[in-house]
Amino acid sequence: MAIDANLKTRRLGIDTYQELVVYLRSECHVCKSEGFEAQSRIELRRDGKRIVAILNVVHFDLLEIDEIGLSEAAWRALGGIDGDLVQLAHAAPLLSFSGVRAKIYGRPLTADTSRAIVADICAGRYSDIELAAFITACSGGRMDVAETTGLTRAMVAAGQRLHWDDALVVDKHCVGGLPGNRTSLLVVPIVAACGLTIPKTSSRAITSPAGSADAMETLAPVALDVASMRRVVGREGGCIVWGGAVALSPADDLLIRVERPLGLDSDGMLVASVLSKKIAAGSSHVLIDIPVGRTAKVRSAGAGAALAARLAAVGQALGIAVKVVLTDGEQPVGRGIGPALEARDVLAVLQNAPGAPGAPGAPGDLRQRALMLAGAVLEMGGKALPGQGLALASGVLASGAAWRKFQAICEAQGGLREPPCAAHTHVVAALHRGTVVAVDNRGLARVAKLAGAPKAAAAGICFEAPLGTRVEVGQPLFTLHAESPGELAYALAYAESQENLFTIQSA
Amino acid sequence: MAIDANLKTRRLGIDTYQELVVYLRSECHVCKSEGFEAQSRIELRRDGKRIVAILNVVHFDLLEIDEIGLSEAAWRALGGIDGDLVQLAHAAPLLSFSGVRAKIYGRPLTADTSRAIVADICAGRYSDIELAAFITACSGGRMDVAETTGLTRAMVAAGQRLHWDDALVVDKHCVGGLPGNRTSLLVVPIVAACGLTIPKTSSRAITSPAGSADAMETLAPVALDVASMRRVVGREGGCIVWGGAVALSPADDLLIRVERPLGLDSDGMLVASVLSKKIAAGSSHVLIDIPVGRTAKVRSAGAGAALAARLAAVGQALGIAVKVVLTDGEQPVGRGIGPALEARDVLAVLQNAPGAPGAPGAPGDLRQRALMLAGAVLEMGGKALPGQGLALASGVLASGAAWRKFQAICEAQGGLREPPCAAHTHVVAALHRGTVVAVDNRGLARVAKLAGAPKAAAAGICFEAPLGTRVEVGQPLFTLHAESPGELAYALAYAESQENLFTIQSA
Repeated sequence: MAIDANLKTRRLGIDTYQELVVYLRSECHVCKSEGFEAQSRIELRRDGKRIVAILNVVHFDLLEIDEIGLSEAAWRALGGIDGDLVQLAHAAPLLSFSGVRAKIYGRPLTADTSRAIVADICAGRYSDIELAAFITACSGGRMDVAETTGLTRAMVAAGQRLHWDDALVVDKHCVGGLPGNRTSLLVVPIVAACGLTIPKTSSRAITSPAGSADAMETLAPVALDVASMRRVVGREGGCIVWGGAVALSPADDLLIRVERPLGLDSDGMLVASVLSKKIAAGSSHVLIDIPVGRTAKVRSAGAGAALAARLAAVGQALGIAVKVVLTDGEQPVGRGIGPALEARDVLAVLQNAPGAPGAPGAPGDLRQRALMLAGAVLEMGGKALPGQGLALASGVLASGAAWRKFQAICEAQGGLREPPCAAHTHVVAALHRGTVVAVDNRGLARVAKLAGAPKAAAAGICFEAPLGTRVEVGQPLFTLHAESPGELAYALAYAESQENLFTIQSA
Repeated sequence: MAIDANLKTRRLGIDTYQELVVYLRSECHVCKSEGFEAQSRIELRRDGKRIVAILNVVHFDLLEIDEIGLSEAAWRALGGIDGDLVQLAHAAPLLSFSGVRAKIYGRPLTADTSRAIVADICAGRYSDIELAAFITACSGGRMDVAETTGLTRAMVAAGQRLHWDDALVVDKHCVGGLPGNRTSLLVVPIVAACGLTIPKTSSRAITSPAGSADAMETLAPVALDVASMRRVVGREGGCIVWGGAVALSPADDLLIRVERPLGLDSDGMLVASVLSKKIAAGSSHVLIDIPVGRTAKVRSAGAGAALAARLAAVGQALGIAVKVVLTDGEQPVGRGIGPALEARDVLAVLQNAPGAPGAPGAPGDLRQRALMLAGAVLEMGGKALPGQGLALASGVLASGAAWRKFQAICEAQGGLREPPCAAHTHVVAALHRGTVVAVDNRGLARVAKLAGAPKAAAAGICFEAPLGTRVEVGQPLFTLHAESPGELAYALAYAESQENLFTIQSA
């Protein structure tokens, strides 16, 4: 219900990380007459635009008595300029949250409930703690196939949906959890070079040191709008852009802002996140890479199979062909962990860089994984007979056709660029000799994040001692890269406090 | 790890509702060199005091470049004055959250994990979204007796624990969910008048329109420190104070700040909350009232019995005698719903107010419930033989001894005062004639909250048509009370949109 009161907006410049927050003076007549207090949910109206924000009450003269302060996110959502008049209203009660509460108490999430929840999330009506409760309630294996299907469908419906001239549109996705596994940047050019349509939208990192969009961004612009993305795909057959910028499954990006600090990324949410993006992107066939390893996101073949079954079942319910490949997830892929370092590995593979003393060549494991996945996509897309995809992919990479396609895609996206280098590095060496028999993926990912990845694009780890490496005392295990000395020291202190990043067995 | 940088504090006066938030300019050298960004967790040190706060980055000149802004909660936690120099540090990773994550993924909460989580919560290291995840993970019947016992023990250990001269210390508690059920304000004076020690600490409302502390506060000060509370109990044998002010089980109050907006209040959390407060308050014998009704917090006798069993089992494990009474929870108790309106009902009972035309007397249902509970406490405390407690309690109330004791307790707490009256009222009347056969407790509680309760002490509902009432068209069902016209209109709009607040059956 609207209140007969207009307040002047004031952009306060406070970055609350996507949560919409507004600020009112406690003595403000609207606060008093309406009983607004800290954490009240308030609707703002300007020019027919409506947003719902959480109130922080201000006790001093940060604001004039007739002003309403806006956080950066609220400012973006409402639009307008400083001093605009806005009308306030009591926000409607968040009725869809009763569906979250029901889920917490063990009742299933119905399709209608999912639709209402996702619509409210997209309208910015969920506060961060409400998002946290929803994510937690859906984590830990508490979503069945029907619930996941309903949530996925609701997430697709909440955003735009792309359609392509070609009826056959392929895609690939990795569920993550394996540092350095940047195969998308290789699969897209190989597959596109063979004539398939592969409009790849990638996410930024959720809990990892880099997502494909983060790594690609060090090589070319990724925040393309739909029109630009269409132009790139029309010209080159493929693209690698950030999904968040094209408003596909927008709820997913809002959920990520809370999943990331909580470090939660559950099966049901993961399936809904992945498939909603793929369906909204207009894909007909998707290959999904699930790395399995003791310290990967998926820790056992059993868990991998369960996730694969969930993906296939939800895909079938929603009319998209899903093929799942379980891959080895015992150690990081390639050498780089962090956006720019991973991009450098990708360039080395695309350029067929030979090894040389002091200058290691293209990482063989990254190359092999990418070729295997590209081969499978080529088979799904009918460009190779079953069993012949790998050979086709290998030829396209070896001939330089994939590298040419990648350059063309980067140019079409806005121009190929050189990934940044970190200002500060530090080598972490072996303390005793022996053979590397285990690597803690999560620990290394954490070190890379403490060093600044993914926000600091050049930050991360260069991993130099894969499983089976025989190391001498003092031989490098990995090199830390950071953009600031503080982050370098912080990451190093954490790395030195962890005894099991590498398990080295004496001969 | 400390950073070699000092910043000047500045109190910004922003009320973030208990969450500790600090503000830094994005161009600030510390932000840049340390890689701090929105939502980073930062430690502040001043004079050996340390707090951990969440960062909001500020893009404009809200702050000088060498200043750090503090939210009201951060300001209170850190102490000091504007312009103090503080040292910053990267906050240690929140290791205890891995225990929350484990719980989300279905592994039990161990005693050690609970201790670590509760210690971190009390130290202000949990952000609101982490609290929301913890609360959600423990909701919906996901805590067993061992987990609840461990959590209760951890919550007791985190705060101070009172000890009394008397070995026998009684207490009573209602699990809430029934509007107007303000029996504590009657049981305490009756029981204390009989010579038992009953140091009652009450909570403020969590999801209801009023807690006992809210109602009592309209009659006397309740925010007493431990020394004052001891003085009151030493003099009068009993008190009714706000538990939050005496730092008993401080984690509970921090959890409530997130439970309240989420509207979650689960069995395990509820038991830990109630028993940790009672054990910390030094009680040896506790009577617990569980109202059961279709729209109460506990909806069935089965659920009530399960909660009773959980309370008894955890009580036994922790060495406190617990007796549970299931009571009728089909409709509000008394007439008032909201702090001041409930206090008026209590006064009418204590003063044995007779009914008169136009001035209804003491609500009989409130009186009967209080006498029954007081009788049970007197039996637990050995002041009455089994079966004779009710008669003793009735005599103490009828004689005026309970009213004299209540006045003495109020005087000892700082002085008896008159509850406030609301500036705005509106009668909601029956639209057709018939008999009231059902009342929606939750709906009425929501209307009272929308009218401003519990923050607006005079706000709420005066309930005038209990079950069985025969009403004519236009006869009042309830009267809305609000301190502002906006809240009155808002509550009324909601009430009129709800068809089932009262079910009236035509004759």
